[in-house]
Amino acid sequence: MAEEVILLDFWPSPFGMRIRIALAEKGVKYEYREEDLPNKSPLLLQMNPVHKNVPVLIHNGKPICESLIGVQYVDEVWNDKSPLLPADPYQRAQARFWADFVDKKIYDIGRKTWATKGEEQEAAKKEFIGVLKLLEGELGNKPYFGGESMGFVDVALIPFYSWFYAYETCGNFSIEAECPVLMAWAKRCLQKESVSKSLPDQQKVYEFILTLKKRYGIE
Amino acid sequence: MAEEVILLDFWPSPFGMRIRIALAEKGVKYEYREEDLPNKSPLLLQMNPVHKNVPVLIHNGKPICESLIGVQYVDEVWNDKSPLLPADPYQRAQARFWADFVDKKIYDIGRKTWATKGEEQEAAKKEFIGVLKLLEGELGNKPYFGGESMGFVDVALIPFYSWFYAYETCGNFSIEAECPVLMAWAKRCLQKESVSKSLPDQQKVYEFILTLKKRYGIE
Repeated sequence: MAEEVILLDFWPSPFGMRIRIALAEKGVKYEYREEDLPNKSPLLLQMNPVHKNVPVLIHNGKPICESLIGVQYVDEVWNDKSPLLPADPYQRAQARFWADFVDKKIYDIGRKTWATKGEEQEAAKKEFIGVLKLLEGELGNKPYFGGESMGFVDVALIPFYSWFYAYETCGNFSIEAECPVLMAWAKRCLQKESVSKSLPDQQKVYEFILTLKKRYGIE
Repeated sequence: MAEEVILLDFWPSPFGMRIRIALAEKGVKYEYREEDLPNKSPLLLQMNPVHKNVPVLIHNGKPICESLIGVQYVDEVWNDKSPLLPADPYQRAQARFWADFVDKKIYDIGRKTWATKGEEQEAAKKEFIGVLKLLEGELGNKPYFGGESMGFVDVALIPFYSWFYAYETCGNFSIEAECPVLMAWAKRCLQKESVSKSLPDQQKVYEFILTLKKRYGIE
């Protein structure tokens, strides 16, 4: 059967990047459609009527919403290569736990490093580093969260690397100085084409954040 | 191998109830340990150092945290009966989507129906009914969200039924009047022993909420 795979996405979306990486890891060809978020396409609203957001993976006309669910779907459908979730139920539960942890913490706390000021910003930077240090502890001596190869947690987390320069520059702090093991992991992931081709340039994300700051009146 | 299954839980926790139902559906015997949340046990802090909350499922000494991850784990380990997630990847993604929707909406919006007043409370009641109506739409004419038998979304949602009387009484509104199809579904679930034995009495939950209101100074 001819596969039709479409991704409704927005270039700086770390959630969209997860699906891009998963599809690239599996070698799935797809049509990328950029959404203009202030003016969402009728297709996006039709395919994701509940949350109305990107990314939406559309496989043979059927939508899959929410990025971690999409990554699991890609892993289950294209199961002939590059497994992302481990086979063992306990290891699967652990991978799901840390991917969920990334989901619950990184975006919201990361946002506060550039969208707040003064004491609130200092607290956010400290909290953000604390979250990364927990992740560093989970990574340990492994090359990837998935072990010898990239897995579910790697795919969940690495997109945020493209936002790190914006966090650091807006927040005036260094992630590398605090979390060198995690940064070495990020650079290891970036050596994979599935990642490097799915992530935008950090400078471009920084400029995007500056436009957001201007739009929201954050000096 | 002799299985050792322990559940660290707190009786009114809808998240704990999910694990209780899943284990009951699979016929797994386990030791239930009630936690005193203001005075958490050393075991809870050791087994869930990241979130420090219940429920924690401990299987042969190894912890599984976060309730939906625990339900999936139970489904994957005890896979000889009562499958909770469908076999088809697309149906699995849909079940995960709606379980995630329940997770993101019901507890937080439900809380506002008893923890706020005036206009905020009116808005919360409206939003809560809106969420339930979306779920009713997804249920459609099926006996269960899982189809002919109880599945992942049923297990995710039914625990909140034990909180409905408290929401209704504190908020002075009727869920049954607004969502009769969903209430019929809830009563169908309650006919199963796996559910009825896992959910506390609605009146007891209401009295618990009253003690919370008093503790937080909500009149």
